[in-house]
Amino acid sequence: MDLGKVADGIRRRTGLAASARDIERVLAAALTSEDIWRIVELAGVPLLVVCAGLECLAEAGWVEMTGSAVHLTPVAEEGCARLRIAPARTLACPRCGGRGVETGLLRELAAEFPRLAAGRPDASQEFDQGYVTEETTIARIAAMWAKGDLEGKDLLVLGDDDLVSLAAARSGLPRRVAVLDADPRITSFIAGVTERESLAIEVVPHDLRAPLPSQLERAFDTFACDPTESLPGFLLFAGRGLSALRGPGCAGYLGLTHAEASLAKWQAIQRQLLAWGAVITDLRDGFHAYVNWPYVETMRAWARLPVRRVPGRLEPWYRSALLRIELVTEAEVNVGPVVGDIFVDDEAATT
Amino acid sequence: MDLGKVADGIRRRTGLAASARDIERVLAAALTSEDIWRIVELAGVPLLVVCAGLECLAEAGWVEMTGSAVHLTPVAEEGCARLRIAPARTLACPRCGGRGVETGLLRELAAEFPRLAAGRPDASQEFDQGYVTEETTIARIAAMWAKGDLEGKDLLVLGDDDLVSLAAARSGLPRRVAVLDADPRITSFIAGVTERESLAIEVVPHDLRAPLPSQLERAFDTFACDPTESLPGFLLFAGRGLSALRGPGCAGYLGLTHAEASLAKWQAIQRQLLAWGAVITDLRDGFHAYVNWPYVETMRAWARLPVRRVPGRLEPWYRSALLRIELVTEAEVNVGPVVGDIFVDDEAATT
Repeated sequence: MDLGKVADGIRRRTGLAASARDIERVLAAALTSEDIWRIVELAGVPLLVVCAGLECLAEAGWVEMTGSAVHLTPVAEEGCARLRIAPARTLACPRCGGRGVETGLLRELAAEFPRLAAGRPDASQEFDQGYVTEETTIARIAAMWAKGDLEGKDLLVLGDDDLVSLAAARSGLPRRVAVLDADPRITSFIAGVTERESLAIEVVPHDLRAPLPSQLERAFDTFACDPTESLPGFLLFAGRGLSALRGPGCAGYLGLTHAEASLAKWQAIQRQLLAWGAVITDLRDGFHAYVNWPYVETMRAWARLPVRRVPGRLEPWYRSALLRIELVTEAEVNVGPVVGDIFVDDEAATT
Repeated sequence: MDLGKVADGIRRRTGLAASARDIERVLAAALTSEDIWRIVELAGVPLLVVCAGLECLAEAGWVEMTGSAVHLTPVAEEGCARLRIAPARTLACPRCGGRGVETGLLRELAAEFPRLAAGRPDASQEFDQGYVTEETTIARIAAMWAKGDLEGKDLLVLGDDDLVSLAAARSGLPRRVAVLDADPRITSFIAGVTERESLAIEVVPHDLRAPLPSQLERAFDTFACDPTESLPGFLLFAGRGLSALRGPGCAGYLGLTHAEASLAKWQAIQRQLLAWGAVITDLRDGFHAYVNWPYVETMRAWARLPVRRVPGRLEPWYRSALLRIELVTEAEVNVGPVVGDIFVDDEAATT
């Protein structure tokens, strides 16, 4: 088996960027687990590449599917040994889940947050939503606090099905919290909790395809968002966020997956962020774990899965890195109004 | 107090890149600790900027030095409150030290490593050395293993006062381990342990100012190094490392500090790494903790410290991020032979 040829085959058949190392990662994951979602999580390559890769491996007699399980054949096991492919391991710290942050000082907030989030809107496919676990939101607050980006600072959240604005405001740490969202269910939910709990959150209904309202430009110390992952969609969120920052030393937090973004896309994103005047200060892979959304069976990748099983709500397989960027110079972003769909590119899997 | 003006003053006086946020970080650190080394660690800005910043703050009546302690005056405390500067916090997970990795599976190696490292050469100022704690070396091995860059792989270590080659070979995980160093004390120490312990390590005396021996080019899956931090020096290590990799999907591990590198330098480094065909996949700030070297009192920054105390050997203040990069395309590195000093630039503090 030549992994490079498998990758070539995938590229020809699907147009997806896929490398020999991607196929190796799928095999390493399949050496560790037979469950399709755990394989996707462990492989850390685009979901559509996992789908196409398993299909090619099945054709070559390396993989068999039974029900919802993915088995490596004895031929594959020999082949992996010959190619020196080892089982995938995470070695994540069991206390912090590999995130590196201690949330003990936020114990009270962690206890309160489920109550604040109760009755939240379901994740909507229309807006490519999918929210992180409550534990993840608290860890993100801790990460921002530890970096000096929360306490006494002005925070803008761009798109907030994760309810970061509620957690941030309830922590009492920021001076100002503002939140934008295009989904009226999200803005009215946050506005309702804000009023009920006497929090101070400015809620602004806004579609990010339009430039920021001018009073929000160059007005914040920190922004947070979890962008849609098409390349133009991701850069739209990041660009709008950067244009909300006051200047050098101000920071942005973004989520970035492997499931919907190849490393080639990561590279294109990083190039643009640097060109806009930012530097990457932190990149913690797998930091965010997502609650499974109700539209798994209608998402784009569902039909391409080699075996199908609806994962449980709290059985996270979709994860994203925590990416922190900081402005080194004034932001040089020039992203005007955008029209049309921002959610789809070749690697998009969940829209 | 206008923090921007303080930063301007530092730039004029010293030529160092310094921002208002840097001064804010020094003040946040001084709100948390009176100890000069803890302030340097918490501030996360170049050591020479901390020195110049404290000097300016002292002139403005915000800071007083007593013995080896740095006190904020009541004027400063009021000023910090007015400027909404909060005390620096790390919120690092106490189990993994904020690194995110679990080293339990490497328990045997961790127990063995001190014996392998016993009698190691002292850190030498001539080669800008300074090695990480033994716990850090084990955590780095775990991080490489978790990313699939160690087990069954071919590893090249470029400069190895940290003794990563010994830990990697002793773990039994890699297929091949090779190590380069310009310091004959290091190469002969590693060669000696290799023989005594019947390890398989290729030890190659080599000064990285010269291109790699051709048999080491495009021959490895993974490289590891802890570069000197002048901009040309850092890029020399990274470029040589990339030219040792087989191609796309192969990865490199580097250490990068705040103590000797401003975020402007981080940005310049990241731009070059992307231009060479790599992507940043992980950036874990503060991952590496260093044993204090014996030449603290003759290092470049010593004379500029506002208060002087020799830190204990195992009282880490000098930390570096773990930076993992991966080739997305073939490496496009064209770094020929280099002559002269590679250790010094404006921000270098420990040479």
